[in-house]
Amino acid sequence: MINKRDAYVIGVGMTPFGRHEGKGVEELGEQAVTAAVRDSGVDWQTVEIAFCGHVLQGVTAGQRVLGRIGMTGVPVINVENACASGSTAFYQAVMAVRSGMVDVALALGIERMGRGPLEVDPSDSGKSPKGASAVPLMPALFAEVFRAHAKKYGTTVEQMAMVSVKNHHNGALNPNAHYGVEVSVADVLAARMVADPLTLLMCCPTSSGAAAAIVASGDIARSVAKKPIAIVAATLQSEKGAGPSDPLRAVTEINARAARKAYEEASITPDKLDLIELHDCFAIAEIIHYENLGLCERGEGGRFIEQGQSRIGGKVAVSPSGGLLAKGHPLGATGVAQVFEVVTQLRGEAGPRQIAGARIGLTHCQGFGGAVGVHILAV
Amino acid sequence: MINKRDAYVIGVGMTPFGRHEGKGVEELGEQAVTAAVRDSGVDWQTVEIAFCGHVLQGVTAGQRVLGRIGMTGVPVINVENACASGSTAFYQAVMAVRSGMVDVALALGIERMGRGPLEVDPSDSGKSPKGASAVPLMPALFAEVFRAHAKKYGTTVEQMAMVSVKNHHNGALNPNAHYGVEVSVADVLAARMVADPLTLLMCCPTSSGAAAAIVASGDIARSVAKKPIAIVAATLQSEKGAGPSDPLRAVTEINARAARKAYEEASITPDKLDLIELHDCFAIAEIIHYENLGLCERGEGGRFIEQGQSRIGGKVAVSPSGGLLAKGHPLGATGVAQVFEVVTQLRGEAGPRQIAGARIGLTHCQGFGGAVGVHILAV
Repeated sequence: MINKRDAYVIGVGMTPFGRHEGKGVEELGEQAVTAAVRDSGVDWQTVEIAFCGHVLQGVTAGQRVLGRIGMTGVPVINVENACASGSTAFYQAVMAVRSGMVDVALALGIERMGRGPLEVDPSDSGKSPKGASAVPLMPALFAEVFRAHAKKYGTTVEQMAMVSVKNHHNGALNPNAHYGVEVSVADVLAARMVADPLTLLMCCPTSSGAAAAIVASGDIARSVAKKPIAIVAATLQSEKGAGPSDPLRAVTEINARAARKAYEEASITPDKLDLIELHDCFAIAEIIHYENLGLCERGEGGRFIEQGQSRIGGKVAVSPSGGLLAKGHPLGATGVAQVFEVVTQLRGEAGPRQIAGARIGLTHCQGFGGAVGVHILAV
Repeated sequence: MINKRDAYVIGVGMTPFGRHEGKGVEELGEQAVTAAVRDSGVDWQTVEIAFCGHVLQGVTAGQRVLGRIGMTGVPVINVENACASGSTAFYQAVMAVRSGMVDVALALGIERMGRGPLEVDPSDSGKSPKGASAVPLMPALFAEVFRAHAKKYGTTVEQMAMVSVKNHHNGALNPNAHYGVEVSVADVLAARMVADPLTLLMCCPTSSGAAAAIVASGDIARSVAKKPIAIVAATLQSEKGAGPSDPLRAVTEINARAARKAYEEASITPDKLDLIELHDCFAIAEIIHYENLGLCERGEGGRFIEQGQSRIGGKVAVSPSGGLLAKGHPLGATGVAQVFEVVTQLRGEAGPRQIAGARIGLTHCQGFGGAVGVHILAV
C-alpha cells in the first residue's frame, strides 16, 4: 500500500428534495452540478472525471445530465449500489483523486421517483412481479428489525417516534428538505400505519432530487477554496458470505464494520464527531445506527434518542439536515446530499441548523443488497 | 499529476458467449470470476475491490454474483456505461490499483439477454415505449452511418460482408464464441435484411455471458503470475458538448480521441500493435474503427479489410476472438471479454487463433450514450 494523496471537497450543490413534478432527472442533475461547480471556484472544464450514482434512471443517465451542461470528453461513469449509490459515487471520486490519475473529480447523485413505496427488491434479480405484496417490502423488513431489537433490548415505538420528531424538527430548519413541518410524538404515533408498528412518519418518503460534490487534490483545494474540507476517510464495505440471514443482522454487522474501518482510516474515535448524516430510511434504522457507529453501546440506541443526545446541541448532532425521514430520499442523490450537509456545517454555513464549532462530520449510507459507505470529513 | 503505480492483469476467465437458456446471470458471473481467480494464482480473499459492469441486470447485480462465491466484505461497485460497461469496470479496476488504495481488484462484466433486437435507447431516458419501431433502433442508426461513409469514401456493402466473413472465421477458432460457423461473402449478403443494407450477419447477436479479469500491483503480479500482462494505457472518454448531431460523427470523434489518448499514455504508435479487439457491433463500425484507431487513413477502412490487413496474419489482427459479430455481445461482458482475449493472445495461449509473437494488444469498446474505453496491454 503506497501513501495516498490527500483529497478535499471544494464545492457542493444540491436541489431541494421533493416531488419536483414535471421536472426531468436531467434538469435536477444539471441544477446540482452547476451549483457545485460555481461553489468550488474551479471551471467546469477542469473537472477530469465524473461519477453519477443512481438506481432507476436508465442507461447513461450521467451523460444525459452532463450533456445539458456541455460534455467535456472526460470519463463519465454511472454507478449503482442500491441506496448507497451516491455514497459510492463519492467514494469513487475520492479514489480517482487519490489515484493521481486526476486532480478534480465530480460526484453526482440523482434520482427521479414516483409516489408510493419503492418496489425494488435487490435480492430477487428483478424477477418477481412488482407491487404484488400488500405490505411494501422495505417497511415490512424494518418492522421485523424493530421487533427483533425491541425484544432483545427493550426499544420502544415511542423512541422511534422521537427519531422522527427530531429529524422533522431539523428538516424544518433546512430549505432543501422534502418536509418542512415539525411533528410531535403524538402525530408520529397517530400517522397512517405502513407496516405495523411503523407509521408513515417513521418511513422516509420517496423523493426526487440531485446533489453534487467536487473533490480535488490538495494543490487545487488550497489554491481555490476558502475553506477546503479534508476527506479523512472514504470507506465502502459489502456483505460477508452470502449476506445476513436475519433482518437485524442486515442492519448491524456491515454498518458497524464500515464505521470501524472509517474511524481507523481517520485515526479518530466516535466521540470526536460533531455531526453525522446517517441512513435513517426508517426510524428504527437510526436507533440501530447509533450503536453501529459507536455513539453508544449495543442496545442503548433507544435511550440515546430519548436522552436527546443526537439532537442539534446534543452529544453529537445526527442528521441536522432532517435525514432521509424529513429531507427525503431520492435514492442515488442521498449519499452525495449527506456530503453537502456535512460540508455546509463544517464551513459554518448551515444557518439556523448550524452546529456550533463543527469540525468533524461523518456520512453513513446503507444500500440493501450489500453496500455501506462511511466517509469522514474534517475542517 | 503524481506518478502512477503500475498495474497488471494477472488472471482472466470467461463463460462461452451464447444463449445460455435457463442459466441466471449470477451463475454466469460466478463461473467467470471463479475461472479468473483460479487463473490468477491469488486467493479470492485477497481481492480488495470489485467492479461489475452490466446494463440490464437490476439492482446490486454484482453483489448477487459474488454472493454465490462468498462475499468478503470488500467494496463491490456496479457500473454502467451502455455497451462500454465492461470496459469501464476494467478502467476502474486499473484506477483502484493505481490509486494505491488496493493491490488486487476484480473487473467483472455480465449480461443476460433475451432474443431479438435490443430496445434500449440511451437518448430518451427510457421514456419511449419499447419495441415500437418497425426497424430496430441501433441497426437503423448504423445503416445510416454506412450510407454516410459510403457516400463520402466509397465504402461498399461487400466490404462490410468481408468484415463479417473474417470475424466469423475467427469465431470458428474460438470455443467461447456464440457463433462457430464460417460464412462466405455470399452468405452474408443473402442473410435476412435487418436495416437496409445491413443483413443479420452484419449485426452482432444479443448474447448472454460473463467475463472477469484480476488486476494487481506490480509486487503482487511479479510474485504470482507466470506472465503478468502490463496495462500500459487505460483510457475512458465521453462525448463533447451535447454529443454529435450526425450519426457518422457519433462513430468517429469520441473513438479517435480515446485512441489518441491511449497511444499517448502508452507512448506507442498504432503500427506497434499486434492485435486489437474492437467494438464491431455492426460491420460498418469495424471499418470506421480501423480509421479511428489509426490503422489506416480516414476513408481507407473499406480497403483495409479488402486487402486482408486485419486478418490473423495480416498487418494487425483485428478481433481474433470473433469480435462482437461472431463471439457475441452480452453488453456488460464485452469489454472484459476483450481483455480476456488480448491477455490470452499475449500469453501465447490462444491455440488455433494465436497471433505469432503477439506482444502488444488493444481493446476498444463504444457505449452509445457517450463512453468509449480504449486499453492497451503489453507483455
